[in-house]
Amino acid sequence: MQVSDIEWSKVEEKVAQTAFEKAYEREISTLVQEVREQASTVSELNDVWQLHNFLSARRHEIDGKYDYRYSVLIFVFARLVKEGWLHLNELDGLATDKLTKIVALTRM
Amino acid sequence: MQVSDIEWSKVEEKVAQTAFEKAYEREISTLVQEVREQASTVSELNDVWQLHNFLSARRHEIDGKYDYRYSVLIFVFARLVKEGWLHLNELDGLATDKLTKIVALTRM
Repeated sequence: MQVSDIEWSKVEEKVAQTAFEKAYEREISTLVQEVREQASTVSELNDVWQLHNFLSARRHEIDGKYDYRYSVLIFVFARLVKEGWLHLNELDGLATDKLTKIVALTRM
Repeated sequence: MQVSDIEWSKVEEKVAQTAFEKAYEREISTLVQEVREQASTVSELNDVWQLHNFLSARRHEIDGKYDYRYSVLIFVFARLVKEGWLHLNELDGLATDKLTKIVALTRM
């Protein structure tokens, strides 16, 4: 599947930006909530280092995942849909070929 | 100051172990409290990463600091006293030359 040279119209760019930001806000909001909950149960050193391990992993994951380059955006959206941070219908407005590719990738 | 080949009597070893554990428990207890407090104020992503940075630094520091080898224990105790995790009188029972060295190191 060749997706790196796909053209994005202005309308598609707007849809993509909005969807991207929405997914990001959802994931961050969930992360903040998770951190507060996990931290509230910290009672010994092992809990502290577990929280640290959790944050290290999440930071690495989030830093890598939210990559807004049009050459990789189809993959990013497929992952966000698969993980539940984005609904397919929030990508309405993208060309059919893009949506088809995203759906195909979510099934892999 | 040559401290690496100091002899420790059985009584001194017991005093040292007890003092070491007491300082460790105090510092860990304070850390757990700090983590809970800092985490309870987390409300956005920047706070999450600040907490992560804080934990990374503390982990590195604590891993390095609590080194129970008799060859370095004089330095460890001096640091713990200096940082307030240990009181000098909790080292009562150590030979005078050791206490003198610890006091001298705390003033550096």
